Amino acid sequence: MLTQIIHALSGTVQGDVVIAGWVRSRRDAKDFAFVEVNDGSCLRSIQVIVDREVPGWEEIAHVTTGASVRVEGEIVASPAAGQKWEIRAKRAEIVGSADATYPLQKKGHTMEFLRSIAHLRPRSNLFGAVFRTRSRVAFAVHEFFQKKNFVYVQTPIITSSDCEGAGEMFRVTTQGEGDGKTPKAEFFGKPAYLTVSGQLEAETFACALSKVYTFGPTFRAENSNTTRHAAEFWMIEPEMAFCDLPGDMDLAEEFVKAMVRHVLDHCQEDLEFFGKFVDKELVSRLTLVVERPFQRLSYAEATRILLASGKTFEFPVSDGLPLQSEHERYLTEEHFKAPVTVYDYPRKAKPFYMRANDDGDTVAALDLLVPRIGEIIGGSQREERLDVLQANLKAHGLRDEDYWWYLDLRRFGTVPHAGFGLGFERLLMFLTGVTNIRDVVPFARTPGNAEF
Amino acid sequence: MLTQIIHALSGTVQGDVVIAGWVRSRRDAKDFAFVEVNDGSCLRSIQVIVDREVPGWEEIAHVTTGASVRVEGEIVASPAAGQKWEIRAKRAEIVGSADATYPLQKKGHTMEFLRSIAHLRPRSNLFGAVFRTRSRVAFAVHEFFQKKNFVYVQTPIITSSDCEGAGEMFRVTTQGEGDGKTPKAEFFGKPAYLTVSGQLEAETFACALSKVYTFGPTFRAENSNTTRHAAEFWMIEPEMAFCDLPGDMDLAEEFVKAMVRHVLDHCQEDLEFFGKFVDKELVSRLTLVVERPFQRLSYAEATRILLASGKTFEFPVSDGLPLQSEHERYLTEEHFKAPVTVYDYPRKAKPFYMRANDDGDTVAALDLLVPRIGEIIGGSQREERLDVLQANLKAHGLRDEDYWWYLDLRRFGTVPHAGFGLGFERLLMFLTGVTNIRDVVPFARTPGNAEF
Repeated sequence: MLTQIIHALSGTVQGDVVIAGWVRSRRDAKDFAFVEVNDGSCLRSIQVIVDREVPGWEEIAHVTTGASVRVEGEIVASPAAGQKWEIRAKRAEIVGSADATYPLQKKGHTMEFLRSIAHLRPRSNLFGAVFRTRSRVAFAVHEFFQKKNFVYVQTPIITSSDCEGAGEMFRVTTQGEGDGKTPKAEFFGKPAYLTVSGQLEAETFACALSKVYTFGPTFRAENSNTTRHAAEFWMIEPEMAFCDLPGDMDLAEEFVKAMVRHVLDHCQEDLEFFGKFVDKELVSRLTLVVERPFQRLSYAEATRILLASGKTFEFPVSDGLPLQSEHERYLTEEHFKAPVTVYDYPRKAKPFYMRANDDGDTVAALDLLVPRIGEIIGGSQREERLDVLQANLKAHGLRDEDYWWYLDLRRFGTVPHAGFGLGFERLLMFLTGVTNIRDVVPFARTPGNAEF
Repeated sequence: MLTQIIHALSGTVQGDVVIAGWVRSRRDAKDFAFVEVNDGSCLRSIQVIVDREVPGWEEIAHVTTGASVRVEGEIVASPAAGQKWEIRAKRAEIVGSADATYPLQKKGHTMEFLRSIAHLRPRSNLFGAVFRTRSRVAFAVHEFFQKKNFVYVQTPIITSSDCEGAGEMFRVTTQGEGDGKTPKAEFFGKPAYLTVSGQLEAETFACALSKVYTFGPTFRAENSNTTRHAAEFWMIEPEMAFCDLPGDMDLAEEFVKAMVRHVLDHCQEDLEFFGKFVDKELVSRLTLVVERPFQRLSYAEATRILLASGKTFEFPVSDGLPLQSEHERYLTEEHFKAPVTVYDYPRKAKPFYMRANDDGDTVAALDLLVPRIGEIIGGSQREERLDVLQANLKAHGLRDEDYWWYLDLRRFGTVPHAGFGLGFERLLMFLTGVTNIRDVVPFARTPGNAEF
């Protein structure tokens, strides 16, 4: 039975253990070899001391970075600085060797290079930490909603609906015959696409089970090569029946705080690593989000603050124009020095499903802004009035018959309801300080890239 | 602040509450109306008593099935049989009405009809119970692996690799111009598909973080209209480094027992409903899985038992042929009356990645069989020897260059490793007794169907 290195290093395991992992480095003394072994269960490697009396010494004395090893030995207190425990080997063996062509030699690599070996980069300190954090935060997302009795709904990936009505969807076909270009007859009986959002389907479940959330992959066929866009990313979309915009803002703020607190409490070692090697401001920024109360202001107030700021922005500030990232960051980083929720956005340029406010000009939308990232959550109360929704569809050039089931929710027992969406990768970038979306995704899909 | 009906019915909430939900039925007495209200938080509805003095009486006296209502009132002990608590309304209002065209009137509907209103069917008892159970089991999956320190890996949906080498993948393109049929230049630089399995990518993470699991959607462009096949379904795929076939069987058996126990312990009310209206044998079958020890036997032994059974099977039993569903069910339902793990399958007809046994004829594969369903889990130890794997690829007509990264895992610190896959919908069918996969998926995707 193997002991995970996280447990071997915890001080809770005593006596003889068997560990296995990959060699990070070897140092030789006269009658010893010191081997650093990592199994990915935590950031730290464990030091194994192999002396020349130990069976396997011959092999281990020549082991190289990247090889896999199995070690039987005793956990002992370490005299070395920076580590409490080490293993004195009683038997050691190389399970799989790695020669000098192993791409992850112990030296600095560019992020571009590491992306090209996405199958090996989780063996590095940085990506081990990123993907352990990704896993823990994913679980924290489920815990957060399950504790509140939200029902997890796995909304469809293949769809014939377009939530945003914005195009930019990938097309799904069966493979063409012969040339690979001619689609066969439609497998689904009509054109099918990859979903851009599970929101509309989540609404149908919220109008039955009251509180639901989605957590699944979504897609955009957008040909943009930026550090913030990927063709495939995971979204979290809660949806609540009998909920208005203030209730929606409450949940969004509570959710962001809970995720930050989770990382501060449960990912300390990895977080410390990010703070040291990725972003020195990370921990103070995260602490600010937990400690400072969120500010709430309307879009109109936000515009007034921006106009009065005296700052020169690249994009103009004007009532009715969308807030740009630079505006959002000014509000959260400079003006309020706190997370900010902006609500009641101009109606134009917002999707058809957002609830119209009584002023006729704005919709009950919210954006939650955090330092460095800007918008991390976007949400709204949904239009629950059948006639208003139908007018919206028309104004957006969409057809009632394509949304018959969505309209049915307003025909039969309609309720005020609200929800929001948040890109999981953007949340991870905020929580880790990593600045390129490609580096928080196991295997990123971007224009020109679907390798692995 | 709304009180969920599950809490209102629990006996833990006292005094005045506000509840909201959808009307299941209304009965009238002389000076009262009895209204059954359900909010999907649990199977049961709560009975609301509205007397003619109550503000809103006028409306509520005419409320119909499917309407949404909001009720302020006091929780009181109920004199009626079958319910402990009810609400005496102090104020009631209809939030959204539902006229006589509401498709979910209180009467029996065919499953086919309910599939055609998949946006409304979660408002029924059966589908509310199915989707609450789906949510809880999904969370139990995460809990099971997270407690054991497995790292959740969200493997890619869009891929250029074919795990099974079996074709039947959906093609992903950007939308053609004009006629919608001509693909533009490949968005990803080469042909891209929807994944059939995250296994190969999970292996890369297991060879870094030791213990990982996936839980995400997978796809098959298989034109088969059966009760067990869908074009889109969710898979769970754990993968463990330094693990052999017996270790893999241990995990598979522990996992199945844990899921069954979770449902028995945490979904009692919904399970009771399934036992009453879906499958009378359900609870006894689930109890058997928890209580009876799993049987383990090789494929060769399984074949001997089947040949000696004296049973007439539709498909022939012969050493070297695959086990059919009828054979699997005979073993688990009749011969052992217990869950059964069959291992060491004939090498031919198994995928390239399964580890060859020393006998040259079999591979270190496992299938876990349960009553009624047959195979619920399939897994294997993976071929970790570079030369054997390369020979396998060749024998399967696959090219080394398409699997360069997968082969790298065997070049650099290769380790014995093993894992398995399980279709989440098949697990749900086993746990709920529901016999058609379309009825455990929020919005099923099958040939001819991508509605909603």
